[in-house]
Amino acid sequence: MKVGGIPMRSLWVEPDGWAIGVIDQTQLPHRFRTVRIETLDDAARAIRSMLVRGAPLIGATAAYGLCLALRQDASDAALEQAYDVLLATRPTAINLKWALDEMTAAVRNRARADRVAAAYARAAEICDEDVAINETIGRFGLDIIASIAAEKAPGKRVNVLTHCNAGWLATVDWGTATAPIYLAQEKGIAIHVWVDETRPRNQGASLTAWELGEHGVAHTVIPDNTGGHLMQHGEVDLVIVGADRVTANGDACNKIGTYLKALAAKDNGVPFYVALPSPTIDFAVADGVADIPIEQRGREEVAQITGRTADGRIETVTVVPDRSQVANYGFDVTPARLVTGLITERGVVAPTREALARAFPERARADRAPKRSAAE
Amino acid sequence: MKVGGIPMRSLWVEPDGWAIGVIDQTQLPHRFRTVRIETLDDAARAIRSMLVRGAPLIGATAAYGLCLALRQDASDAALEQAYDVLLATRPTAINLKWALDEMTAAVRNRARADRVAAAYARAAEICDEDVAINETIGRFGLDIIASIAAEKAPGKRVNVLTHCNAGWLATVDWGTATAPIYLAQEKGIAIHVWVDETRPRNQGASLTAWELGEHGVAHTVIPDNTGGHLMQHGEVDLVIVGADRVTANGDACNKIGTYLKALAAKDNGVPFYVALPSPTIDFAVADGVADIPIEQRGREEVAQITGRTADGRIETVTVVPDRSQVANYGFDVTPARLVTGLITERGVVAPTREALARAFPERARADRAPKRSAAE
Repeated sequence: MKVGGIPMRSLWVEPDGWAIGVIDQTQLPHRFRTVRIETLDDAARAIRSMLVRGAPLIGATAAYGLCLALRQDASDAALEQAYDVLLATRPTAINLKWALDEMTAAVRNRARADRVAAAYARAAEICDEDVAINETIGRFGLDIIASIAAEKAPGKRVNVLTHCNAGWLATVDWGTATAPIYLAQEKGIAIHVWVDETRPRNQGASLTAWELGEHGVAHTVIPDNTGGHLMQHGEVDLVIVGADRVTANGDACNKIGTYLKALAAKDNGVPFYVALPSPTIDFAVADGVADIPIEQRGREEVAQITGRTADGRIETVTVVPDRSQVANYGFDVTPARLVTGLITERGVVAPTREALARAFPERARADRAPKRSAAE
Repeated sequence: MKVGGIPMRSLWVEPDGWAIGVIDQTQLPHRFRTVRIETLDDAARAIRSMLVRGAPLIGATAAYGLCLALRQDASDAALEQAYDVLLATRPTAINLKWALDEMTAAVRNRARADRVAAAYARAAEICDEDVAINETIGRFGLDIIASIAAEKAPGKRVNVLTHCNAGWLATVDWGTATAPIYLAQEKGIAIHVWVDETRPRNQGASLTAWELGEHGVAHTVIPDNTGGHLMQHGEVDLVIVGADRVTANGDACNKIGTYLKALAAKDNGVPFYVALPSPTIDFAVADGVADIPIEQRGREEVAQITGRTADGRIETVTVVPDRSQVANYGFDVTPARLVTGLITERGVVAPTREALARAFPERARADRAPKRSAAE
């Protein structure tokens, strides 16, 4: 999408044809800084320190990390070592392993002299596939937004609420939850997005608000507490969120707090959609609330907040008493009964075992397909 | 309640018998600083700059503000002028007007020479009445906690979730939502409180966590997004929140985000209680969602956060892109159907028109009784 009016992706090959460029997302929304990645170590560090985040983007960065490693040393040993280094950067990111396996398969049986070119070709494909899947999700989501827009009085905008960042910054382009929004904007539909701040990591206020603003999409940042009130008063036409994992039954695991918005949507008759690439569906798990383990993360994400001081420095401040305990659950599970539909690259699927198996018969049969999630 | 092991109130008469002491709540949880209030202007400034907040404490501070004004000049003109100055400090705090009217009634028909003593006496009564009401609310709430504790396996603690600060810092002592918690602790019941951070003003992380910690109550600060997940997993036994206003039908207006917790409580069979002094009930309003106007507050409360830097300074940082719009609704309304009971100084009342009218027949008849709310 656009930054300062110029179209870009969240990751690109530099004009020299081999180094990689990414946006330093840890500096957003305060500073737009791009970083040049030249080595395996650069790529590993970019993932580990969360310059890049979001499962698809992590996967794409890791894919190019392997390319950079092979440029230095195209041996099997170097390939394996690079695989291990990259895999260890974010051990819970399922998509990371998927991308590394894809890359390994693409180069393993080739002569050393051909490996670098084959790796760059496959990495580019991985990126293009991500973009294509997200754009397809966007087209199906656009139909939903367009039909809501058609019911609106002239001059009234469609209000979408989203939680966390399932935006283009988390993917290579378009995003998942944001793809329908960007396409609606492109189509000239009057659209406005309520952006949940998304404590504790503030991805909504930091990333979603930034990317919508740069692309020129009207939006308003709200505390996570606010969505229910807005829905009670008719200020939300639909909710679209991403997902970290969706079960065979249609339960959706996503950033903590998603469940509360789904409850409010149900209580107020607001449609609640989850946008996801189909590899996010985990056909091996049925009951999301009972069976998806929820990661507990560090105290500092809750106890501290980073922002920009009046004089322009990036500063971290503590907002919780030192003696107080803190709990930091990364995700929650929204039961399928609260989900209106799953927006996938094969269309909008009902959140039921039957509908999911019908839409993805090859996946429903093979429990352990490689997964590709929108994890933070 | 206790601070550093020493019992105190949120407001007191200094040993000299005339000046007033308060805690500077703007510095919490980072610094415990008390402030001496000697003049009408000091009192007005303390309310205006939110050194003191919470409707009962604002009312008590205003009452003593009138005392201090009368010490300088006990004339009718001075009384009226002080009334106006204090009333203007927080125009929407209903309790402020109530306290000023009470004070005026207590001194108006007295000789000038008697006015100061009469004012101090009435101000002390206002404080003591607040403490007594809250303690009574606490005793009724304690019965609920004790009966949950009785059902627990030995060694298992009762987990209470609360939102915002309806604690002793918002009142003169005990608090409303916290009174049952402090009494349960006193009684030796194993209790633990999930403290919602409470964006945007962070009263949970800043004030509730601080006061529970100082009094030695086990607690854990959580992002506002977390409560639903905890309830899904049986980690919350009951919710107790305060209220800004409760309608004749039992709808409860409280800090934004309360409604989302009530939805989650309902969805998971968790009892949801609202603790309130009865003057918070507004018998003139029936439908809270439709008829209570919700205050919209400033951008800076959402866009900026204040905390403590690593080197101990109090610093404010910006966390929202400058170009992004922000919305800041102060309150939301929890419909009565989601409320298990209203814990009042006359017992636990069902959130229905009939039950409320039965419990408070004198109020239900007189629509426009003076109100006393737990407004922030």
